[in-house]
Amino acid sequence: MDDTKQSLKVVRLGIDTYKEAVIYIRKDSYICQAEGFEAQARIRVRFEDTYIIATLNTIESDILQVGQAGLSEYAINLLGVKEGNEIYLSHPEPLQSLRKVRAKIYGNQLSDDDFAEIINDVVAGRLSDIHISSFLTTCAGDRLSREEILGLTKSMISVGARIAWPDQLVVDKHCVGGLPGNKTSLIVVPIVAAFGLTIPKTSSRAITSAAGTADAMETLAPVDLSFSKMQGVVEKEGGCVVWGGSVLLSPADDILIRVEQALDLDGEGQLVASVLSKKVAAGSNHVVIDIPIGITAKVRDFEQADVIKDYLITTGEKLGLRVCVVYTDGCQPVGNGIGPALSARDVLAVLQSDKDAPQDLRDRALDLAGHVLEFSARLQAGAGRQMAEKILNDGQAWHKFQAICAAQGGMREPPEAKFTHTVESKVAGEIKAIDNRRIARVGKLAGAPQDKAAGVYLHEKVHAKVEMGQPLFTVHAGSKGELEYALDFVASDGELIVIKEA
Amino acid sequence: MDDTKQSLKVVRLGIDTYKEAVIYIRKDSYICQAEGFEAQARIRVRFEDTYIIATLNTIESDILQVGQAGLSEYAINLLGVKEGNEIYLSHPEPLQSLRKVRAKIYGNQLSDDDFAEIINDVVAGRLSDIHISSFLTTCAGDRLSREEILGLTKSMISVGARIAWPDQLVVDKHCVGGLPGNKTSLIVVPIVAAFGLTIPKTSSRAITSAAGTADAMETLAPVDLSFSKMQGVVEKEGGCVVWGGSVLLSPADDILIRVEQALDLDGEGQLVASVLSKKVAAGSNHVVIDIPIGITAKVRDFEQADVIKDYLITTGEKLGLRVCVVYTDGCQPVGNGIGPALSARDVLAVLQSDKDAPQDLRDRALDLAGHVLEFSARLQAGAGRQMAEKILNDGQAWHKFQAICAAQGGMREPPEAKFTHTVESKVAGEIKAIDNRRIARVGKLAGAPQDKAAGVYLHEKVHAKVEMGQPLFTVHAGSKGELEYALDFVASDGELIVIKEA
Repeated sequence: MDDTKQSLKVVRLGIDTYKEAVIYIRKDSYICQAEGFEAQARIRVRFEDTYIIATLNTIESDILQVGQAGLSEYAINLLGVKEGNEIYLSHPEPLQSLRKVRAKIYGNQLSDDDFAEIINDVVAGRLSDIHISSFLTTCAGDRLSREEILGLTKSMISVGARIAWPDQLVVDKHCVGGLPGNKTSLIVVPIVAAFGLTIPKTSSRAITSAAGTADAMETLAPVDLSFSKMQGVVEKEGGCVVWGGSVLLSPADDILIRVEQALDLDGEGQLVASVLSKKVAAGSNHVVIDIPIGITAKVRDFEQADVIKDYLITTGEKLGLRVCVVYTDGCQPVGNGIGPALSARDVLAVLQSDKDAPQDLRDRALDLAGHVLEFSARLQAGAGRQMAEKILNDGQAWHKFQAICAAQGGMREPPEAKFTHTVESKVAGEIKAIDNRRIARVGKLAGAPQDKAAGVYLHEKVHAKVEMGQPLFTVHAGSKGELEYALDFVASDGELIVIKEA
Repeated sequence: MDDTKQSLKVVRLGIDTYKEAVIYIRKDSYICQAEGFEAQARIRVRFEDTYIIATLNTIESDILQVGQAGLSEYAINLLGVKEGNEIYLSHPEPLQSLRKVRAKIYGNQLSDDDFAEIINDVVAGRLSDIHISSFLTTCAGDRLSREEILGLTKSMISVGARIAWPDQLVVDKHCVGGLPGNKTSLIVVPIVAAFGLTIPKTSSRAITSAAGTADAMETLAPVDLSFSKMQGVVEKEGGCVVWGGSVLLSPADDILIRVEQALDLDGEGQLVASVLSKKVAAGSNHVVIDIPIGITAKVRDFEQADVIKDYLITTGEKLGLRVCVVYTDGCQPVGNGIGPALSARDVLAVLQSDKDAPQDLRDRALDLAGHVLEFSARLQAGAGRQMAEKILNDGQAWHKFQAICAAQGGMREPPEAKFTHTVESKVAGEIKAIDNRRIARVGKLAGAPQDKAAGVYLHEKVHAKVEMGQPLFTVHAGSKGELEYALDFVASDGELIVIKEA
């Protein structure tokens, strides 16, 4: 179908809809009336040679004039327009990709080409959040075959950048989320790089957690590196810890993940495709994947873990990626600090072999680093952990970490929070459980991850015996208001830390 | 969780998002920073004793000030706020209904209570379009059991109004959409009411078609009746044709249907629940359901029709609703006129026994009316069609129709379009097919249904033999621009009307 004959002038309303392209037009404009465009219609929007499909919101106020069109920030970026540019609207042709989604709903298998078509339209903004939600739903509940998981993964790799490294062996390490304070990457990367392997680690920022690995690293060095800057760091130091979003390794995943979060849905196939697409894009060929298992972690039991493990290994094989899956304890947070700076301090303590360093974080990082090191032909099976311990103990890892920070733009000191409050035990007894989701919530209410200094510091962990009045945890916040929010939640919630009275 | 301590002042930005509650807050406001609210987060918004859950869009421009919050029109209505009112925000508790949707995705059966929880949250605006999309997707592809279809239907009935009539026998007639120009209701209702049965017909406006039955009726009489006004019309005349949206019979359906349209998805169970919930709410206990079957109709083959028929009858039984399903030819539009006024003129021609009245519309209406009449104990099986014909031929139906129009607020003349253009056949031959979807598209591009006079008038139908240069159809439009749009589409499309050359 042709464009409308009339153009509209772009106005920047400054509305951030995240990754949803929205167009705003006055309800009483000729174009709405002539084309029969109504709120929530999908409209093809063209600027010069580029077009996107946007969802219509109609306007009945003076924030826009007839002849003008507002665009959401995402739509402005996708289309590459500036204020005053002329855009043309039309009815979009029916999307083939949407037919594929429907075919899947009706029980058909999707081919590699089908997934490519769907993921291309996701990245180009032609499928709305409503469509993406439908796609994710029909793929969840273990409804993707092995071939389909592979097809989905390949399609997600193909829409992003992909890094090639000169080394034959390129390793990586990834954790299937869900555990507050888990920042082993910041210890594993320098150990592995100090050993001499290439480990180009990209990490995520927090989406619903109190701190992503990238947020913690950012309190110690810049993580917002360009693609070529990241390559430079890895070529020089063998490893890096940068934010994946800035190097655009899996643009499809950035979009899908936010809809998954809204649905609180983690389809197995989707999870596998998300993890592996990023690792392949980063140029790795050997990867250790940590699956924490616990009732308040993302993966709740061994049965679910076994399914995911199997998909990870078999899909990885087809992509030339050797996957080693490690199950770890997911019953409580890792280390003591939850929040970007507090996590970073735990990491520094481990790297500097501080006697107060959290032992669980140290142990977990050494185990994982050991598995990664064993990908090397220089080590025998079973010798990895000992080698990792040696590299950590003799200061090589700490030295390498400082070098990586310097290469990423300069090492810095994590900030400290202005306000703190320590919560004490009301009873004497033994800590039986710490709820991962609730403790992360406290950290977020205190301001993390936007406020890098905010978060929670756990003084005691599961199995510890505590006296009445003994400090359990300290909340760190940048303002009194935020401290109060967090403490209000603590006061109202009985299941944050479960203590069995002695 | 408590509300934030700070309130925000409501500003009406006049943004129509259809049935999606959206809240707009400045990104640099304290509340976004303290609570970690980011674009697309779901936020609990409280005004006095009412709360809704809205999707956040953050603002980086001067359309809002810090301390202010914009709300979409739907959110304003749901919450019952005015400009300047103070609202309070908080993180919403996890929704139980979303857990039920997830349970369904993972293959569990949902109970009546589960559906009630989901549909309550849909109507209260607590589930976003993303969630609704997931719910519809997981119910589609024939994944609802009979018990689940019944549970869904009951939940949709329970959230809306429900009319009780004094008569024991209350009949209705419904068409499972998908056929342009299908306005048999406007003929069936007066025949049935003239016979003496109670037929409280509610109809829909066009959503993606060129004219809903309510749009066609509106060119002849008001259809925007209140609940009590509708009752008055039916008590006086035995029947009515009003817009279902104004009497709020199935508020859940109004929301679900728009998301279904966006997905172009019609789950069988959802379709059954949608139809039956409206009929039960309207107080009917006997209903004839017309399923047009054709490759460009909503139902494409007999196999699919049989599945839907079976669900309609068995679900109806459990609700005390006797359902008679009639299959009709869905291979082309019904009658000659497509668009509100053009459809209405066809209806008037049939009611007035005009010799040029479209015979297919007349036949179809008489068949359906016959089935409805046979619900009456006064008629023997098989005698309905003859009785319907008698009532139509002797002018009783026309007389009753005028009385109904008068009762609904006064009969009026359908408008005429200012601009028309007749498309002629380029070849001599026989018409083999008329594409329902494409011909509807032409009507919409010409301005229907917003412009009541706009649409398409078919001069010839399938099986007709045509000469080169013989008129095939005339496009009616309110402006030259709209006429051109429609004709551009006609010129660019080769499959609108398929003619086999002689």
